[in-house]
Amino acid sequence: MKYYTEYLTFNTKERRELIKITDEVNKVVKSSGVREGLCLVSSMHLTASVIVQDDEEGLHRDIWEWLERLAPYRENYLHHRTGEDNGDAHLKNLLTHLQVVLPVTEGRLDLGPWQEIFYAEFDGKRKKRVVVKVIGL
Amino acid sequence: MKYYTEYLTFNTKERRELIKITDEVNKVVKSSGVREGLCLVSSMHLTASVIVQDDEEGLHRDIWEWLERLAPYRENYLHHRTGEDNGDAHLKNLLTHLQVVLPVTEGRLDLGPWQEIFYAEFDGKRKKRVVVKVIGL
Amino acid sequence: MKYYTEYLTFNTKERRELIKITDEVNKVVKSSGVREGLCLVSSMHLTASVIVQDDEEGLHRDIWEWLERLAPYRENYLHHRTGEDNGDAHLKNLLTHLQVVLPVTEGRLDLGPWQEIFYAEFDGKRKKRVVVKVIGL
Repeated sequence: MKYYTEYLTFNTKERRELIKITDEVNKVVKSSGVREGLCLVSSMHLTASVIVQDDEEGLHRDIWEWLERLAPYRENYLHHRTGEDNGDAHLKNLLTHLQVVLPVTEGRLDLGPWQEIFYAEFDGKRKKRVVVKVIGL
Repeated sequence: MKYYTEYLTFNTKERRELIKITDEVNKVVKSSGVREGLCLVSSMHLTASVIVQDDEEGLHRDIWEWLERLAPYRENYLHHRTGEDNGDAHLKNLLTHLQVVLPVTEGRLDLGPWQEIFYAEFDGKRKKRVVVKVIGL
Repeated sequence: MKYYTEYLTFNTKERRELIKITDEVNKVVKSSGVREGLCLVSSMHLTASVIVQDDEEGLHRDIWEWLERLAPYRENYLHHRTGEDNGDAHLKNLLTHLQVVLPVTEGRLDLGPWQEIFYAEFDGKRKKRVVVKVIGL
């Protein structure tokens, strides 16, 4: 069994961003030397997620509108008594789930035809990390 | 370490369906020869999910009503400018998460007493796939 | 390759509770002897989840309010025709996802600085279980 761990770092210009990371994750898979196994891609923060979706700009705007409807920015979250103002970002993380686990087959991510991996930042403009861990043969 | 990959294919009659796949996934686990490990069951499409829930018809109707309330069908999603009409299916996928990872113990899926695996189709009537990947000893 | 499985048992006093289990899961990782691998922490019930969030009380109250807004308790879920009254708990489980997969690095859970693991009980006051399965080297 082989294993390999790498950390991707982000520091977005905008507070909320979707960043395609499929190529970066495929590079990690290549570096791992794993031909068959599983690849975990997981946010190390509570206000960002990793999702799999389509790379289509209209859809991305629909997703942001939807996230804002279901987990809206508000001033009066109780969490804000700590001095933070990112209560909505915690809820958006819960809604979208922090992580994905991807199959590695014949040395590559085994994704469907339209599946792209995105880092979903809900409270950016600061350094944050995603852990990528590959295990297999 | 052993690994084994199989693809389940679906082509639903209805646009939206819940299809129980616990037996199919257990067959894949058996074929894998893995006695102890992890089994990833993941949609290869952006408009379908794999979930674990109870096989109870009333609950399934509650789930569909709930999904429609939180991620409703609408004509005016921006994604529809591409010619698609499945914006709601993308949001339903995000809401329910595309995948589950199941423990394999003593050669079988290690599920709770009421846990069944379902393929949740949000935009069917065409050929779609789920990847099942088992790794372990 | 090594593997190790343990079951955590809960029997909450309240119907709804968030219980921090990071230390318990780290103990399982230690018992496994795995230095590098993956750790699945998954609810074996359909009315509880395992999530990763911040250990901050105000945030927890925000999360409960949010869960109740998106997946409210109601008397008239169709699932209740079976005699149950926990339809909302099934929906809260779907919303938060039943499980997390965590990286194990150098013999410990490889979590971000504020990440804690919680058992989220949506229909407690009875014995329920979480499976923790570690595989790796």
